[in-house]
Amino acid sequence: MGGDFGPRVIVAALITSLRKHPGASALVFGDQQMLATELSTCTDSSLLSRIDVRHCDSVIADEDKPSSVLRHKQDSSMGLAVQAVADGEAQACISAGNTGALMALGLVRLRTLPGISRPAICATYPTSLGRSYMLDLGANLECSPQQLHQFALLGSLTAQALEGIAAPTVRLVNVGEEETKGGENMAQTAALLSADPLINYLGYVEGDGIFEGNTDVVVCDGFTGNVALKTSEGLATMINGMFKALLASSWVARIGAIFMRTLLVGLKSRLDPAFYNGAYLLGLNGVVVKSHGGASKKAFGHALDVALDAAKHNLPGVLSPILQGRMDNGIK
Amino acid sequence: MGGDFGPRVIVAALITSLRKHPGASALVFGDQQMLATELSTCTDSSLLSRIDVRHCDSVIADEDKPSSVLRHKQDSSMGLAVQAVADGEAQACISAGNTGALMALGLVRLRTLPGISRPAICATYPTSLGRSYMLDLGANLECSPQQLHQFALLGSLTAQALEGIAAPTVRLVNVGEEETKGGENMAQTAALLSADPLINYLGYVEGDGIFEGNTDVVVCDGFTGNVALKTSEGLATMINGMFKALLASSWVARIGAIFMRTLLVGLKSRLDPAFYNGAYLLGLNGVVVKSHGGASKKAFGHALDVALDAAKHNLPGVLSPILQGRMDNGIK
Repeated sequence: MGGDFGPRVIVAALITSLRKHPGASALVFGDQQMLATELSTCTDSSLLSRIDVRHCDSVIADEDKPSSVLRHKQDSSMGLAVQAVADGEAQACISAGNTGALMALGLVRLRTLPGISRPAICATYPTSLGRSYMLDLGANLECSPQQLHQFALLGSLTAQALEGIAAPTVRLVNVGEEETKGGENMAQTAALLSADPLINYLGYVEGDGIFEGNTDVVVCDGFTGNVALKTSEGLATMINGMFKALLASSWVARIGAIFMRTLLVGLKSRLDPAFYNGAYLLGLNGVVVKSHGGASKKAFGHALDVALDAAKHNLPGVLSPILQGRMDNGIK
Repeated sequence: MGGDFGPRVIVAALITSLRKHPGASALVFGDQQMLATELSTCTDSSLLSRIDVRHCDSVIADEDKPSSVLRHKQDSSMGLAVQAVADGEAQACISAGNTGALMALGLVRLRTLPGISRPAICATYPTSLGRSYMLDLGANLECSPQQLHQFALLGSLTAQALEGIAAPTVRLVNVGEEETKGGENMAQTAALLSADPLINYLGYVEGDGIFEGNTDVVVCDGFTGNVALKTSEGLATMINGMFKALLASSWVARIGAIFMRTLLVGLKSRLDPAFYNGAYLLGLNGVVVKSHGGASKKAFGHALDVALDAAKHNLPGVLSPILQGRMDNGIK
């Protein structure tokens, strides 16, 4: 039971989510006392009956290294939550805690899908036309062409399964759109993606093209993806802050804002990072979703939606035979 | 005489710039006929007397490779413009053409400053508190710790010389702020920066921290910098487009926009990419500024300001003895 704000935000989001999804129920791992306090605010006994609290003493800290977690903290709340997915007791696991630890526990307990060497962090983000999937967002700082190929495949199959897109378009992030741009790794990756009949590869995309919305799946190494995602969040936060500061400085502008209220609320909700919270650890043989540590109730609620959606579509179950089929046919 | 729009935009920007800077004069390299046509719109003969047109037949195309430019096109407009700086005939060179060619010609004709192995592309960008310098923005896709160290030094000395900041703060872009984040290269770079008495190194910065404005100089490899910069441009363009579309869809919002006009114009000008156009090829022994190929008149005018500012401060002349002094003292 992690996240920067402890169980308060998470329990509140869970209660709202269970109201929204009547067929869902939850296993919650953490400190029983703390969880009981948070749950005591809910008086709906039928809803409470869908929450099964499992007490854990061991908690993973942000600074815990994955190797140390695997040695000493497999019985932590995070470890037991991942184990519940491995045991088939849960169809998805959501955590707002240490990403490296979640990845390590996922790898050990769930293993990867056939032919996938390492999972990638994958999330959706807003574009001019809707939303797109981007991976890797930070699990693998440097990636071989083979790994990027696997990510492209995972992203493409996921967009197909979850969004119903027949042949999702895939592009590789590069410093130019021309074929000659980028290093040798980039050229090798492009060759692998072009040759793969399961991938609708359209070429390179530059940073500014990411938001145009004409790419369903954007693929890059984890360092690039992490910087691109966080740079976007930082810029959006700065623009929001500048807007508020200017608004506070002028009563004329504040009158204007009243007229523009619907527009501004609409724009904000389209761009709200909370609405894009919840990233898949894609490539694990089970649904594991990472929420931002500082997630609000709304943001954690969205991460729950992400996890429920993947579970509903039986994502690893759909991807696994396709990937296994490729292996059986000798495709790497 | 390059750029996506040919001499029209560039000549128009130049005329405005020369009006603004009465002490400046220009050498313009390109097709004499085309330039004469553009210049004929200007009737101010004393201003025209400050423009010296040098005819060139050879033009560098966007797809020309740097190696081919060095073999066959050193007498192109770009080649001669760089040569004018090498000869001391010009104090700065500005081009909106092929970046790789400009870098190659700069390296051959101007060489690098003492102890600098490769130049970096460096530009300013807006932050919550003002503006910061960022490099490399795409000249060197992969960088060794030694190169990143050189970039940190170049950026720091430039912020000192141009902005008058006594000890510019420097941070390295990484996927986390903790010391353990990033790979071995990152740790080695951090060690070099920490140990350098000329660099006020404050640690790592994540993508979202780039815009907070508490870092004067942000250092990263060219791949990361290019993606971060272009992602920011793409997001700003998307937000602007969404705002306009929503505005067009509601007359109530349009009334509000009239009240908010001053605010919106102020916000737009703070974030306008045109105002940040003009990137230094920092580390060359001469001022060379690259404008965006698709620059508007306003944007190219800003690139001219950037070049004039560096020339006025005699940037390479200030940096060279400092860097030479380090070499003489055995500091790499």
